[in-house]
Amino acid sequence: MPKTFTAQDFTARMARATETAAQAGLSGLVITPGPDLLYLTGYRPVAITERLTALVLTPGRPPTMIVPRLERPDAEGAPGAAALTLTDWTDGTDPYAAAGRLLDPNGRYGISDSSWAMHLLGLQEALPASSYRPLTRALPMLRAVKDADELERLAAAGAAADDAFRAILQVAFAGRRENEVAADLARLLTQYGHSQVDFTVVGSGPNGANPHHEAGERVIQPGDTVVLDFGGLKDGYGSDTTRTVHVGPDIPDEVRTVHEVVRRAQQQAFEAVRPGVACQEIDRVARAVITEAGYGDYFIHRTGHGIGLTTHEPPYMVEGEEQVLVPGMCFSIEPGIYLPGRFGVRIEDIVTVTENAGRRFNNTPHALATVS
Amino acid sequence: MPKTFTAQDFTARMARATETAAQAGLSGLVITPGPDLLYLTGYRPVAITERLTALVLTPGRPPTMIVPRLERPDAEGAPGAAALTLTDWTDGTDPYAAAGRLLDPNGRYGISDSSWAMHLLGLQEALPASSYRPLTRALPMLRAVKDADELERLAAAGAAADDAFRAILQVAFAGRRENEVAADLARLLTQYGHSQVDFTVVGSGPNGANPHHEAGERVIQPGDTVVLDFGGLKDGYGSDTTRTVHVGPDIPDEVRTVHEVVRRAQQQAFEAVRPGVACQEIDRVARAVITEAGYGDYFIHRTGHGIGLTTHEPPYMVEGEEQVLVPGMCFSIEPGIYLPGRFGVRIEDIVTVTENAGRRFNNTPHALATVS
Repeated sequence: MPKTFTAQDFTARMARATETAAQAGLSGLVITPGPDLLYLTGYRPVAITERLTALVLTPGRPPTMIVPRLERPDAEGAPGAAALTLTDWTDGTDPYAAAGRLLDPNGRYGISDSSWAMHLLGLQEALPASSYRPLTRALPMLRAVKDADELERLAAAGAAADDAFRAILQVAFAGRRENEVAADLARLLTQYGHSQVDFTVVGSGPNGANPHHEAGERVIQPGDTVVLDFGGLKDGYGSDTTRTVHVGPDIPDEVRTVHEVVRRAQQQAFEAVRPGVACQEIDRVARAVITEAGYGDYFIHRTGHGIGLTTHEPPYMVEGEEQVLVPGMCFSIEPGIYLPGRFGVRIEDIVTVTENAGRRFNNTPHALATVS
Repeated sequence: MPKTFTAQDFTARMARATETAAQAGLSGLVITPGPDLLYLTGYRPVAITERLTALVLTPGRPPTMIVPRLERPDAEGAPGAAALTLTDWTDGTDPYAAAGRLLDPNGRYGISDSSWAMHLLGLQEALPASSYRPLTRALPMLRAVKDADELERLAAAGAAADDAFRAILQVAFAGRRENEVAADLARLLTQYGHSQVDFTVVGSGPNGANPHHEAGERVIQPGDTVVLDFGGLKDGYGSDTTRTVHVGPDIPDEVRTVHEVVRRAQQQAFEAVRPGVACQEIDRVARAVITEAGYGDYFIHRTGHGIGLTTHEPPYMVEGEEQVLVPGMCFSIEPGIYLPGRFGVRIEDIVTVTENAGRRFNNTPHALATVS
């Protein structure tokens, strides 16, 4: 078991967030339930609903969280509660007027990306001269650099996903539906310690050419190429890995060729990881390999995304992202080639940035494995 | 099995939504993934993420949905896809500029309550003269009046939750942890046909006085009063019911008294349900019973919320809500009394509005049941 984050950890995180906000020229931060609030306070309300909960961080003032009155006992029990001033609002009163009293009427705030539009509109109406920026644009690095405990959890989540991949190679593919293999993957992730399964993509044959296909009723055939992309949360931190396998030993030349292009793209992008390199450079390296091989039009997504308390977060490995890599960042490298109506290939590892290179949290072989 | 909603159903819903928006003086609607999009198109993306997906409804123009390019095949497979024009955007390009081309630069739009703030801010930046209102404030009744198929599903979900309650009365309470009984409830909801369990509150003794307590490590004691509040989705529609039980036959007078007050409050509020009555009136009726009995300070939440594709939606039975009841609306009536540090009592049924009264979807007895 990794150590439990303490009120001291949350105090330090809130102090750093507040300081970074001030440096970025913001009046403060408005943090609503979801990964930001979990990161800063350890608090996860029973549900994310139409009732406003918001942590307000303001330089020079104590962190204050406004919660619905009936959820106050839950908030008081949060791991970071000792570091917070709590205030509440009651059903039938205006939560935005109450939250507005914690804000500078002319202030510029960063607000959690996934805050409900309804809440943002409520604040904009209560304080018409205030302004807001999405937190990942205002402070993209807030959760991007992981500390030692977080890295330990991410490594453990990656190792558990690897165990699930090794085990799935032993199950029957041919003659079973994609969603049966997906259920096996979910069971294996849970068996190896995941508390939450976020996705279990099983894209067989032509379905593999749809990068976001999950798993359906299609019966897997001998000769299919199958994309397996799976992950979730273990001890609160994410896993996300993809391997492409082939059903049966007779691998067509084109599948071998495409797989080898993707493998080289993933490897070269990985080798480009080091502090100071721009995120977009990782995308460019992978894309160049695929484009030079003539498949550029079939690599239809960015190369990667950050991972931590969620399985999709900054930094993004995408053209236009000039943020440079910093030790402790963790993200996916997942180039793919998708041939519509035919098959797809993707290879994905989670990688962290060390002092001088990249280190993989997924370590199963990249060679095209065969299944039965 | 209830019937499957068809492209025709979705076309009709989108037409009605567009017409209602125009009547409300809006230029159109911006609908993002979640219950609104599911209701209007049947489309549920694999995940709700930082990548913008938005349905734009504009009077006089065909419904258009913008999706990330890599999710386009999924969107094309949505039940309502035949009624939609699809357009897409690619990683590394600006989705808000692309979505903005579907909007009137000076338009007033309703936007899904749970749209990410990041997306709303992106649209506000792309079209500074456009303005937005939360959908449940702009068109609170969009999903509030259920059609016959929806009512059938809600009735079936309620009946399944009732079956789960009858079964839970047979399990042992004393000596077991709250979260063990909660796991029983989750298993029973699933056994009786729920595909998703949203909450299983088991609030024993003092924990029952926290209305949003879920279930914890506390070992249930003989003599405890226990609040059981549970629900989820069956065939896509919600259940939500609460009963308060007592462990062992020796019920203290005060528990009997408080329970009887809550029972009368729930019954009188139910009897007040008929078309034309304001939502706030349902709250007032329940609150008056509790206040007259001297417990007004201990009823610390609104009396109810709508239910449908979600377990919390308009109409809300709360002071200040002047919307009148309309046949086909479905909502909870759930008064409670919470005595801090001691115990709580809540009774909750889902109710629908008929032509001349209310009809319950939960029909287990309100009398204080005892468990062992």
